[in-house]
Amino acid sequence: MDFFFNPRGIALIGATPNPQKGGHAILRNLRIGFKGGIYPVNPSYAEIEGMSCYPSIIDVPDPVDLGIIFVPAPLVPQVVQDCARRQIPGVMIESGGFAETGESGAILQEAIKSIAKETGIRVWGPNCMGLVDTVKGHIFSFATPMMWDYGLKKGNVSMIVQSGMLSGVFLIDVMTHGVTGVSKVCSIGNKADINECDILEYLLSDNQTESVCLYLESIEDGRRLFRLWKNSPKPIILLKGGKSKKGASAAMSHTASLSVNNSVLRGAMAQAGVFEATGFRHMLDLGRTLARYPKSATKSPGKIAVLTYSGGAGIVSSDFMDSLGLEPAELSRSTLYQLKTITPEWMPLSNPVDLWPAVERNGARKAFGTAMRAVCSDPGVDGVLFHAFSGGFALNPDMAEIVRISKSAGKPLFCWLLGEREAARDFQERTQDLGVPVFRDLHRAVECMAAVFRKKSAVLKISEPHQSDKTPLSNILENMLTDKVGLLDEHLSKQILSAYGIPTVIEKVVIDEKEALIVSAEMGFPVVMKGLLPGQAHKTDAGLVCMGIQTEKDVSDAFAFLDNKMSESKTGGKIIVQRQLPESIEMIAGLIRDPQFGNCVMCGFGGILAEIIGDSQFAVAPIDLSEALDLINRLKNQKLLDGFRSFPAVNRQELANILVRLGQIGMDYPQIKEIDINPLLKGDKGLMAVDALIVL
Amino acid sequence: MDFFFNPRGIALIGATPNPQKGGHAILRNLRIGFKGGIYPVNPSYAEIEGMSCYPSIIDVPDPVDLGIIFVPAPLVPQVVQDCARRQIPGVMIESGGFAETGESGAILQEAIKSIAKETGIRVWGPNCMGLVDTVKGHIFSFATPMMWDYGLKKGNVSMIVQSGMLSGVFLIDVMTHGVTGVSKVCSIGNKADINECDILEYLLSDNQTESVCLYLESIEDGRRLFRLWKNSPKPIILLKGGKSKKGASAAMSHTASLSVNNSVLRGAMAQAGVFEATGFRHMLDLGRTLARYPKSATKSPGKIAVLTYSGGAGIVSSDFMDSLGLEPAELSRSTLYQLKTITPEWMPLSNPVDLWPAVERNGARKAFGTAMRAVCSDPGVDGVLFHAFSGGFALNPDMAEIVRISKSAGKPLFCWLLGEREAARDFQERTQDLGVPVFRDLHRAVECMAAVFRKKSAVLKISEPHQSDKTPLSNILENMLTDKVGLLDEHLSKQILSAYGIPTVIEKVVIDEKEALIVSAEMGFPVVMKGLLPGQAHKTDAGLVCMGIQTEKDVSDAFAFLDNKMSESKTGGKIIVQRQLPESIEMIAGLIRDPQFGNCVMCGFGGILAEIIGDSQFAVAPIDLSEALDLINRLKNQKLLDGFRSFPAVNRQELANILVRLGQIGMDYPQIKEIDINPLLKGDKGLMAVDALIVL
Repeated sequence: MDFFFNPRGIALIGATPNPQKGGHAILRNLRIGFKGGIYPVNPSYAEIEGMSCYPSIIDVPDPVDLGIIFVPAPLVPQVVQDCARRQIPGVMIESGGFAETGESGAILQEAIKSIAKETGIRVWGPNCMGLVDTVKGHIFSFATPMMWDYGLKKGNVSMIVQSGMLSGVFLIDVMTHGVTGVSKVCSIGNKADINECDILEYLLSDNQTESVCLYLESIEDGRRLFRLWKNSPKPIILLKGGKSKKGASAAMSHTASLSVNNSVLRGAMAQAGVFEATGFRHMLDLGRTLARYPKSATKSPGKIAVLTYSGGAGIVSSDFMDSLGLEPAELSRSTLYQLKTITPEWMPLSNPVDLWPAVERNGARKAFGTAMRAVCSDPGVDGVLFHAFSGGFALNPDMAEIVRISKSAGKPLFCWLLGEREAARDFQERTQDLGVPVFRDLHRAVECMAAVFRKKSAVLKISEPHQSDKTPLSNILENMLTDKVGLLDEHLSKQILSAYGIPTVIEKVVIDEKEALIVSAEMGFPVVMKGLLPGQAHKTDAGLVCMGIQTEKDVSDAFAFLDNKMSESKTGGKIIVQRQLPESIEMIAGLIRDPQFGNCVMCGFGGILAEIIGDSQFAVAPIDLSEALDLINRLKNQKLLDGFRSFPAVNRQELANILVRLGQIGMDYPQIKEIDINPLLKGDKGLMAVDALIVL
Repeated sequence: MDFFFNPRGIALIGATPNPQKGGHAILRNLRIGFKGGIYPVNPSYAEIEGMSCYPSIIDVPDPVDLGIIFVPAPLVPQVVQDCARRQIPGVMIESGGFAETGESGAILQEAIKSIAKETGIRVWGPNCMGLVDTVKGHIFSFATPMMWDYGLKKGNVSMIVQSGMLSGVFLIDVMTHGVTGVSKVCSIGNKADINECDILEYLLSDNQTESVCLYLESIEDGRRLFRLWKNSPKPIILLKGGKSKKGASAAMSHTASLSVNNSVLRGAMAQAGVFEATGFRHMLDLGRTLARYPKSATKSPGKIAVLTYSGGAGIVSSDFMDSLGLEPAELSRSTLYQLKTITPEWMPLSNPVDLWPAVERNGARKAFGTAMRAVCSDPGVDGVLFHAFSGGFALNPDMAEIVRISKSAGKPLFCWLLGEREAARDFQERTQDLGVPVFRDLHRAVECMAAVFRKKSAVLKISEPHQSDKTPLSNILENMLTDKVGLLDEHLSKQILSAYGIPTVIEKVVIDEKEALIVSAEMGFPVVMKGLLPGQAHKTDAGLVCMGIQTEKDVSDAFAFLDNKMSESKTGGKIIVQRQLPESIEMIAGLIRDPQFGNCVMCGFGGILAEIIGDSQFAVAPIDLSEALDLINRLKNQKLLDGFRSFPAVNRQELANILVRLGQIGMDYPQIKEIDINPLLKGDKGLMAVDALIVL
């Protein structure tokens, strides 16, 4: 991939002297920032602005590692072919007119894909704005060359974006406002070949990148992306465009993106420790914060000291912390003692610390410095939220000193800033240059602080867990999985689950009324009797389930009823007798094949709770026990698992074990399309599958 | 109140030539902006900066309508006394050191309150930053005089704030950044006399105010505030500080604020159509948006046309609209036809409308103008979200023309702006001067747009509904309400409810086993029998409820059991037999006396649902039927009322009727402290109170 980021020479196919055209902007941008050879290609010109212009890529002298293509879409396949013949390792196609425009564009895009596959040339784009690298001074993009005049602000956040806006006008906005600098911004467009995974992999080992922000409208290879996320040593932030139905349909026409199952995506993100952004600025704010504090979350909730000059802002900070999972730290006696030395006698001391009276008495430097030293040496304080104002008041703390104290104590510092426009930008840039994130909105400051202190149980696991040594299934089951297609009935499905160690309810197939009577007597009443018909997934709706069987007569009646029903259908089938478990919290668990993320386990509340609270969570399989427990704890109403009313608690460990095993089955038998356990109920030996279905 | 806003002359008690002191800043601010007489008072100086300084307020010449006081707290009561003697109608006390500092400060504040009460002088503050009025150029505050250099930006949003920060540094921030201008900002501090209600009432009839933002840490007179809210012709936005437990305790030490029941507050706000802000900037963003579009919500959800230059931003706009209750408008054929004239052939047209290719072909003026005309003449479009970029690209639309089109079509226009810092501020100020709100954050733009299109069923009701003509109670019940204190038992409580037309379950007091047998036979099994003991609020816990009585023997057993239990307690009591209703959705309803808002009705889910979903809502009584229905529709899980599983639907009208009547009882009998109906169940004649308790 390095030839995209550090080419020795670049050929620009579609260079033009017309300043209204993108081909001119790209050339200008290359000439301003790129140090290697630049070779304009355009058969209409012999030279452009004093540079030799070549009729074709074939004529361009060495070395050329990258071709940037900006010619009309129909011409692009030939150009790519030529570049491949010319042994150029990569091209960046910035022209539009491909899959995003409909049928004929999609054919052109397919043609390019084929060329890439056949020749090995790597293709970035089409329909993209290429690359901006502020550190190297590379703008491989038709973004306005005025960006250079505005100033490229260097930073350590990189972005991979499926929208040119984010690598152009948005950058101009955030850089000129002093919000943050960035490192590399990669606009990947339609992703005909190079996709987010390729670039993410590159950025994760890039020295100039400390965090990566992703704006994606589609996900190309969910499993690879998930693996990269999970093994990433750097914080990753994702904004997914097209989460809503209307948004997804707009995404379809923007970058020809297929829709993504958001529940699965959310599960995968939580599992891999990826941060979810809710908007463009939020994405970058999280990115710049986490680039600064990638590994600060040792405790949750984080206990924060708030140093403020405004009682009201302190109160609202407390409210925000409360709603975002942080807590104001309880200050130690020693800290309060130190604060006493700068505050007036009458002042009640608490956290948030209102330093206004202290500033009035001691000046800002002494007041803020003393307070900062006090809270940073307090073992009960995990981080500091510093309120600052710039411009006009005696409120200018010595920020270098404040930052030094925070760093030497190892306590992350976050700054919320209000101020007169010029003074505030100056303050923000100076403070951020010292390495401390500054926010202009208080809620955003607390949001970003909360991300730093978010529990990160799933991050930094290096390998995929649970490599299955061998299948635990009998030959009969094994063969069945190989031969059958469609639904396995409840009884067979549970045999497979059981072989994998998932507890299932006691049940038996019975062939006649007599056996039904014997079996139910052995099991003890009440029992359930069910008729299993091939291909029938909805037994209850089909009247094939008899619950609450209490007497021998009930057994006989039920057998006759089911036998009759089943003979109607003429497809054969079997009748089973099952132990009926007492009422308890109904859980559901399962396995699905997600188009993007593949094999995923699911867990949620079943029965009436499902209707009332509709609460389920996903994780990408395989999972280990701690991931399964994490998944369970992500259920919004997971506290119900502790039991309520007459319902006993659900053992999380047992449930987690079942989820681990479901994931394992999915890994071992790729032919299984879906497993659905509904419900899981508490039996005398713990949680067990009462009904289940496997789809092949 | 006008003497606070438009005094003919102002005496400044505590004026000083020391530029480090607040008393100097106030003087500077008065001299720069105030056109009337300014009279510094301080016995230590004969003159200050060329102005005569008076030893005492008594010596100040006429006319003086306002005294601004900035002397140490212990001196303040005497100064207020002097001002009252001097016949000055109002004082603004900006010194701190009162209730916010503890016991002795609270005594000083009480002293001031007494003087106000005795003499009639009105007191604003203490512990406040007074008034900023940009339109008149009044800064009656110790805020830094540098504000004048930064520029006071006029606007039509006024604020009432319980934090000096919001009338000082925050203003400097938003005005210098071109976010918005403001009209009057009133910092009210500890509210010893003048409170938010007094000022709100003034601002609601102030010509320079189109919307009012409130930041409150406490609420002084909830019922008066609620009445002002409900009758307000202007949008009101509230940010409540101290919503969390830690926040509330910080508010206690900041402005000596007592905590507020947030559920009741939220209910009152929703009922009165007050907008809830989540942060300082959000508050002002809502304020400036709603000042511009106070009455646009005719439909909900609003159908929005999005004009953008970025496919990605369009997609994310759709996602935001979806999550905030707006919808992308379905564009008409005529609109699509007009858009076709500017877009390339290949381009699939939809809303959000990506105009980038149209801009490339036709230039920004034509592309945006044509698109704007098209969507504004589309009857399916209720409003327009316009994405703009300023600085560097060929993306400059003719905003005057865009705004003109929006205005003549009567469709609210909202602008989201990215841009190079200087160009963007210029664009924002120019566009806002044209009357269109501009936002720098896309999510915020959609949030504010959603507020404009929020359903406003409760707004603009003028009078309190339901003046009860006469009490419908019998003399016996009437006397009981007058004489008793504490709990009324279930049976008596339900008689009162029943007299007010609230259906109650059939029940009868029985004196012996024989009567119990007769009554239960008449009612039909199953029945419930309960023992009612004086003062016993928890019958079930006390073992005084026998459910599911199915036979005569059960009746006899239950009677003996209850009779025995009750004789144990030696406090007398009675046994009742009740019709037992079949299982259905359990609702709860009630009446409380909130310390701030008084008589409030409550409604929620009861029984097991309460434990699972904990969902209840409040409204300030009295309420009419539509307010009751609104309250019910605010229940987060109100769709459960449509029925689920075997549970039949709950009739909203019946439930609403019960709530209206509960409110009525509360209005008629102020001695009732609390009514608790738990549960309400569906009987054969509709929803009825099965158990109830009235607390006197």
